[in-house]
Amino acid sequence: MSSGNIINAYGVMQAGGGFEPYQVKVGALGATEVELEVLYCGICHSDLSMIEDEWGISRYPMVAGHEVIGRVVATGEHAKHFKPGTVVGLGWNSGYCETCHYCRQGDKNLCAEARFTTLTGGGFADKARADMDSLLEIPEGVDLVSAGPLLCGGITVFNPLVQFDIKPTAKVGVIGIGGLGHLALMFLNAWGCDVTAFTSSEHKRTEALSLGAHKTLNSRDPEEIKSAAMSFDFIISTVNVNLNWDLYIQALKPKGRLHFVGAIVDPIQFTLFPVLFGQRSLSASPVGSPATIETMLDFVAHHQIRPQVEIYPMSQIEDAFKHLKSGNSKYRIVLSRE
Amino acid sequence: MSSGNIINAYGVMQAGGGFEPYQVKVGALGATEVELEVLYCGICHSDLSMIEDEWGISRYPMVAGHEVIGRVVATGEHAKHFKPGTVVGLGWNSGYCETCHYCRQGDKNLCAEARFTTLTGGGFADKARADMDSLLEIPEGVDLVSAGPLLCGGITVFNPLVQFDIKPTAKVGVIGIGGLGHLALMFLNAWGCDVTAFTSSEHKRTEALSLGAHKTLNSRDPEEIKSAAMSFDFIISTVNVNLNWDLYIQALKPKGRLHFVGAIVDPIQFTLFPVLFGQRSLSASPVGSPATIETMLDFVAHHQIRPQVEIYPMSQIEDAFKHLKSGNSKYRIVLSRE
Repeated sequence: MSSGNIINAYGVMQAGGGFEPYQVKVGALGATEVELEVLYCGICHSDLSMIEDEWGISRYPMVAGHEVIGRVVATGEHAKHFKPGTVVGLGWNSGYCETCHYCRQGDKNLCAEARFTTLTGGGFADKARADMDSLLEIPEGVDLVSAGPLLCGGITVFNPLVQFDIKPTAKVGVIGIGGLGHLALMFLNAWGCDVTAFTSSEHKRTEALSLGAHKTLNSRDPEEIKSAAMSFDFIISTVNVNLNWDLYIQALKPKGRLHFVGAIVDPIQFTLFPVLFGQRSLSASPVGSPATIETMLDFVAHHQIRPQVEIYPMSQIEDAFKHLKSGNSKYRIVLSRE
Repeated sequence: MSSGNIINAYGVMQAGGGFEPYQVKVGALGATEVELEVLYCGICHSDLSMIEDEWGISRYPMVAGHEVIGRVVATGEHAKHFKPGTVVGLGWNSGYCETCHYCRQGDKNLCAEARFTTLTGGGFADKARADMDSLLEIPEGVDLVSAGPLLCGGITVFNPLVQFDIKPTAKVGVIGIGGLGHLALMFLNAWGCDVTAFTSSEHKRTEALSLGAHKTLNSRDPEEIKSAAMSFDFIISTVNVNLNWDLYIQALKPKGRLHFVGAIVDPIQFTLFPVLFGQRSLSASPVGSPATIETMLDFVAHHQIRPQVEIYPMSQIEDAFKHLKSGNSKYRIVLSRE
């Protein structure tokens, strides 16, 4: 094997712990595995949730980081079609069972046995390993420095457009203009939609318009949202706190959909009658399948969509997470090993 | 005009009041109106809700009754294609605006200006009038005595199968085996689905199986519902009280849908994570469009689906409502003028 047997990572030893240099001893590559040299790795809010064991599914030591752009350095015997030097992306999932009904029908992100990159060993490291079925070649013309956030944040907001067959004629709204929301604005604008951002300040309003929104509504003004009743075919919420969902449901047209991609831990509450009389839907979804990530990357290349990122050297990972926690990042942070 | 100028109805004079003989003076028929001689009229739980002004939209005097089977006796000048003697059905809506986007695309039941039969003058009377766009000819072979409940209860559970493209290969569940639920079991069985009824007693279990369920799960045993996790493509709830919806959401397969047709006034509450990780949906819908009612009536004729009804003479309307309130009707009550 050409690759070394040590991965030099930034590990977290316990729930809520800081990052420490951490050497992971690895054995021979599995037959379907690929080893990458990490070039860039985005930081997602869910890295923080996993590090702090907010969802009760974490294991330590943990090497997080699941918005990885890397270069193939070694391949297992069944993964030889990934040529060394190829630049690939790795997202939330690092492998799938490949035999369940959902894997078989292409919905691998819904596989109950899908493995989480953050638990199998992620991109806050010099190298990362993942199953070949989770790796996507980055097409020509995609900016590599900013591409990492597409692999989780990007696909999370792109996937519902494919799953629910959102039409370019749709009027759409985006709640929460942060890491996910700014990508939603860019995607929906390129998708041909009439895009409204729900924003909370004049400053955010201007930024939302520059990112792709055609108009804005003040999310802190219930009357303003009420005045938009029956306006939207699709509203995507990227926030991780509860809002007055009834207001947003009433802002939907009949047959409209309120879709959640932000992870809200508290129960969701809504009034049934406006949903019933308007045949509306509420739904949610996690990331996207490898096939949909591929479709997204082609769309990104065609439309030259570029996540807005702030770059930190990977050695400054602690500072980068402090910045993430401040809530002031514009809009996504990427760690660079260059 | 061949029809008289008086409709002899059973009216309700105030919220929660009893039925009284009530004569409605009517003028000339509107150009697009049709007058029916009422033959049968089903009683729906929503008649009771309207009579008692549970939803805050009632007006009095009220002539309720919106599951009407009637014979055409007179037609307005633009409604001459409805031949006198033709037997037609009239449901929840007695007319539509015909010019909104939803009317134009055929989703007339989502028209914000759709008129409610219960407010314009329903079938607890010797005659009823409605706009021609709301009337459906009853096809050959449909049993007229039991057909009334199809026009509201029936279409309410049939419509989602059309709207959400439920496949015959789907595994489906029905919550609440009453007026709506018993029709859902019959429709879903004829649709080709694998049908499970959620029931609360051995007695109900046996009945559900005879109505079309292939299996049952005890709705009062959370462990039994948990054991069916990831089983259903589609669960339809016909109840009008809150249950532990998280249990039913977890009983859905990935991409599954929990659909509400029972009117629940209290807020609905659910946990987002199972919805998100499984790309599941929650939704609700009201009755169905005239086109979908037509489709349902053809399906009913083909499969010889017959609502299970108890017949009361219309003169015993008070007794019939007492029986409805007892919750013991099997499964729908029809008032007969014969």
